[in-house]
Amino acid sequence: MTNTADLESRIRQSFDRQSMMKTFGAELVDVSEGKVVIRAPVLPKATQQHGFAHAALTFAIGDSAAGYAALSMMPAGSEVVTAEIKINLLAPATGPELTATGRVVKSGKRLSVVTAEVMRSDGTIVAILQGTMAPVVPTGQA
Amino acid sequence: MTNTADLESRIRQSFDRQSMMKTFGAELVDVSEGKVVIRAPVLPKATQQHGFAHAALTFAIGDSAAGYAALSMMPAGSEVVTAEIKINLLAPATGPELTATGRVVKSGKRLSVVTAEVMRSDGTIVAILQGTMAPVVPTGQA
Amino acid sequence: MTNTADLESRIRQSFDRQSMMKTFGAELVDVSEGKVVIRAPVLPKATQQHGFAHAALTFAIGDSAAGYAALSMMPAGSEVVTAEIKINLLAPATGPELTATGRVVKSGKRLSVVTAEVMRSDGTIVAILQGTMAPVVPTGQA
Amino acid sequence: MTNTADLESRIRQSFDRQSMMKTFGAELVDVSEGKVVIRAPVLPKATQQHGFAHAALTFAIGDSAAGYAALSMMPAGSEVVTAEIKINLLAPATGPELTATGRVVKSGKRLSVVTAEVMRSDGTIVAILQGTMAPVVPTGQA
Repeated sequence: MTNTADLESRIRQSFDRQSMMKTFGAELVDVSEGKVVIRAPVLPKATQQHGFAHAALTFAIGDSAAGYAALSMMPAGSEVVTAEIKINLLAPATGPELTATGRVVKSGKRLSVVTAEVMRSDGTIVAILQGTMAPVVPTGQA
Repeated sequence: MTNTADLESRIRQSFDRQSMMKTFGAELVDVSEGKVVIRAPVLPKATQQHGFAHAALTFAIGDSAAGYAALSMMPAGSEVVTAEIKINLLAPATGPELTATGRVVKSGKRLSVVTAEVMRSDGTIVAILQGTMAPVVPTGQA
Repeated sequence: MTNTADLESRIRQSFDRQSMMKTFGAELVDVSEGKVVIRAPVLPKATQQHGFAHAALTFAIGDSAAGYAALSMMPAGSEVVTAEIKINLLAPATGPELTATGRVVKSGKRLSVVTAEVMRSDGTIVAILQGTMAPVVPTGQA
Repeated sequence: MTNTADLESRIRQSFDRQSMMKTFGAELVDVSEGKVVIRAPVLPKATQQHGFAHAALTFAIGDSAAGYAALSMMPAGSEVVTAEIKINLLAPATGPELTATGRVVKSGKRLSVVTAEVMRSDGTIVAILQGTMAPVVPTGQA
């Protein structure tokens, strides 16, 4: 029953307010109910000591894709924060680009459980994430 | 028996090669065997949709502090990568600064288990992390 | 202001309803606000393929200690369930006994963040855990 | 090229040495390269305070399914231990049975990354797990 264009525009409004996503040059690539895709280049400013993408970039797009996937199943006007998330790093995060796909495993009123997968341009899985998203309450308190 | 100045300079050399740390304005504040402290300002370019620090900043300094804590207990010439790490976010990451303290729980030849705590300037704990660091082998493969 | 005897009796009532704790021969050793200690023998029926305690025993007492630590800071009549928890296993879980100490890092109305540490009789840390506990709502739904 | 019967018999030999699996009445249901299924009844001796299966049972079969999935991709004679694993609990673990399916996401010489899903008889997902398995070295040290 959700209008897809509305859904995407709602997610995009929140995404565009994240300065961190702009800093990383990340783009919102695809939005559907329960699944969100974010892509980012491996910029020279986002590397670790071996010249690969820093785990924080991989984390950033994986966490955001998972969070927006959770948000995509909530009523309009909702906001969501990460309560916790775990990342397993599987392969060096080389460029030119990384693509994160976030998915909802269970959408709940109080908590949503999500996963994400981050891939290199060559199709190698760089990381998998599993976490919990919580709707934001007015006071900002968990 | 480790010379403390040597230890700090060794960690600092690796830290300084992480462009991501420069992007975030992060500083290596304290290094001792098994414990490393990193501090970063909450810059306008590193926020999420509510204007707080993005979880990726909190993650970046927590993960790095934990990783360098592991490295501080390894022989000179070692390098370390994050195999996996989990973050629980406890409170909004407001500025002006965040401070991450990484600690080694168990240092092993094949794996080291680490924790980190990230605090706001007002002393509130923003996040705790628990993870596994692995020494890098020549091929960069886990 | 909480009566310590009341607190302990409240936790003990819930503990005694967990048949799994009986199956493992686990005992509630110590209860205070925000900290709970559980001890269990390494019984022949609770081992893995190398003869050490199965990770599920280490998990069981670590998770329960952490959960009851969270419950110890909630109003009487509350119940709590594990939303998620992560365990890092550090050393073989040999007997004769394992002792788990659970602690609250942040107690919240909607979520509590907890840690636990599981030790062998010889003082070696066998495992550390970090997780999220949620108060139970009438429908039993997260 | 692996003989499937050999593979299953190899996994079964290890499974049968886990007294904990017997205690829980757990069965090895299916073994293939990179995927293992374990099923267990929700016995009266394995419950928590609300009468559902204790998280330790859900954990036990999820962790074992994931560990054996990792082992199924290693050379004969290998053994594997859990380095770390995280569980998100999604729904009450009611019986009569729980079924855990473990899968390998990345098989490595030093570490394997795995996931598992635990389901009720009615098809509801009770829990998802994500973790790291490590081959055992002679001293049993990580």
